[in-house]
Amino acid sequence: MAMNGLTSMKRYQIAKVYRRDNPSKGRYREFYQCDFDIAGPYARMQPDSEVIKIMTELLDKLNIGEYEVKLNHRKLLDGMLEICGVPPEKFRTICSSVDKLDKQSFDQIRKEMVEEKGLTPEMADGIGEFVKKRGRPLELLSELQQKGSKFLENEGSVQALNDLEILFKALDKAKCIDKVVFDLSLARGLDYYTGVIYEAVFKGLTQVGSIAAGGRYDDLIGMFGSKPVPAVGVSLGIERVFAIMEQNQKDQNQTIRATETQVLVGFLGEDLPLGTELVNEFWEANVKAELMLNKRVMKHIDHAKDSRIPYMVLVGERELSEGVVKLKDIEAAKEEVIPRTQMVEEVKKRLLTIREATL
Amino acid sequence: MAMNGLTSMKRYQIAKVYRRDNPSKGRYREFYQCDFDIAGPYARMQPDSEVIKIMTELLDKLNIGEYEVKLNHRKLLDGMLEICGVPPEKFRTICSSVDKLDKQSFDQIRKEMVEEKGLTPEMADGIGEFVKKRGRPLELLSELQQKGSKFLENEGSVQALNDLEILFKALDKAKCIDKVVFDLSLARGLDYYTGVIYEAVFKGLTQVGSIAAGGRYDDLIGMFGSKPVPAVGVSLGIERVFAIMEQNQKDQNQTIRATETQVLVGFLGEDLPLGTELVNEFWEANVKAELMLNKRVMKHIDHAKDSRIPYMVLVGERELSEGVVKLKDIEAAKEEVIPRTQMVEEVKKRLLTIREATL
Repeated sequence: MAMNGLTSMKRYQIAKVYRRDNPSKGRYREFYQCDFDIAGPYARMQPDSEVIKIMTELLDKLNIGEYEVKLNHRKLLDGMLEICGVPPEKFRTICSSVDKLDKQSFDQIRKEMVEEKGLTPEMADGIGEFVKKRGRPLELLSELQQKGSKFLENEGSVQALNDLEILFKALDKAKCIDKVVFDLSLARGLDYYTGVIYEAVFKGLTQVGSIAAGGRYDDLIGMFGSKPVPAVGVSLGIERVFAIMEQNQKDQNQTIRATETQVLVGFLGEDLPLGTELVNEFWEANVKAELMLNKRVMKHIDHAKDSRIPYMVLVGERELSEGVVKLKDIEAAKEEVIPRTQMVEEVKKRLLTIREATL
Repeated sequence: MAMNGLTSMKRYQIAKVYRRDNPSKGRYREFYQCDFDIAGPYARMQPDSEVIKIMTELLDKLNIGEYEVKLNHRKLLDGMLEICGVPPEKFRTICSSVDKLDKQSFDQIRKEMVEEKGLTPEMADGIGEFVKKRGRPLELLSELQQKGSKFLENEGSVQALNDLEILFKALDKAKCIDKVVFDLSLARGLDYYTGVIYEAVFKGLTQVGSIAAGGRYDDLIGMFGSKPVPAVGVSLGIERVFAIMEQNQKDQNQTIRATETQVLVGFLGEDLPLGTELVNEFWEANVKAELMLNKRVMKHIDHAKDSRIPYMVLVGERELSEGVVKLKDIEAAKEEVIPRTQMVEEVKKRLLTIREATL
């Protein structure tokens, strides 16, 4: 971060990442991820608020269905364990038990915590009371801040509650608080989180699980440099988003268009320069056009149908000599003969109609 | 290629690539590259023509200055060596000598070919006559196709000349032939090329050398599969393009804008929710806005200047209570007080004026 005189940055990346672990079925050590991170000094909770706002903007724009953002604070989790009497050296392992609550019942977790991880039944039940709590952010927060709340006696928890108060009020003003659920059972597996943590869960298909997640990691960057750099970020699993999109399209009996091509220039012959002259007229007019050279009309029609290209311009020797082209509307299976000089204009006119119809 | 039922594809990629070689100074084994490739069966020379058209479109749109596309054909090179009496096993090593002609004189190359690589002086001088030839594609081509041309007696060369005739006529129709120079000295270092080869050279700064290059590689994909897949592609070295852009901007005394931010919301205080409410009004109106919380006016102004953000909205306690904001035009150093309710609209109006002025 200190390189090139930078002290802070907001950055995104869409790229392959690599994880040295044993991934579960259908997951890989190499996968695509979309990251957004803010690093460096900013006003208290501002980066956290902006990262969460951007995550909700992204998920809204993807338009893949209902989702919720589960949110918690690492220091509140630690405070909760402290209050329950869990020894500090067991915090991380107990967190990873709590983290399984989205897949297992509390009874299973309780058994693990008591029988395998050596908590007393009282400690486990104390944790059980806390992790039940989930609700609308500002409401649950004010409950936890009320006189008599055990969190008020715990220094780290008080700091976390103050963080969350600023954050929730900012998210309210950023008009995305409705997507957020304050959930005391959210733990997140990774060790490096130091503050707010969150996970976006798609509500349509439970098997997909979380599609975006992140949190504050103030100590991670400093490990690789000379001074600490506070940071907060979110990662979106783009392959899961694609899986949801594909499923949604299947559910609606839609096939996925593999290309954006708007018009197929079907040249009935082998003359590349003549075909190029035609397709280049579309390219110059910024129409997405593909040239295909083939003597058989059906080859052109099949290709347009397979690729779901909406329009086709068919040109053979006769059309060339008569100065016309055949303009086909593939879906409507309609054909007209139009002057070649009006070819681009006519296709553009029709594309505009499609666009208006979809808007 | 046979995977997923695909028999052909047009694809692009902007990504890191890795090369297992010893790169020269300032180059690395890992770098970013923009690739476009067409693989599979298509009409003769169609993919070659489309890849070159796209390369010129790309370089034109980047608007980084004058360039030319040097172009040759591997089979014409081989034919030339055959005609000069070079033994086939020396074709590749002689090609790599010829490839140095953009950096060394022919006398140096001649010495290398004769003294190190064992050609006779007559062979070397024969090559020297050929590699001098460069010119406008259709003109030089028709010269090489004229009665008496040595190429007409060489089978591979005739095939190459026929390829080039189709290609040049198509590029002429695609209106990019003016960028192409047919250059018999272009050899390209890589072994896998089998047909047309090309290299785009930026004419402004000689030290940058080629910024995009490619060719036909019909035998490469088949090496990894069960059947041959003809293919042709181009790679653009995006880091070199950035180097040229930076130099151009320096030459024009411009600094590079690191962000696209259109307006800085400078909040004179620490209240994140209030600041968020302001910046979110811009976000909702699709204005690229950044929020900064700081009590000191100069911090905001310095940040806007450093990041070359054109407009700033300054809001403190007084402005909040009076329902106004200070709107600053950073470059013009002008300030007006406007009602907060008109804040977004006023900034949008000014941004439109900027845009019109730059168009």
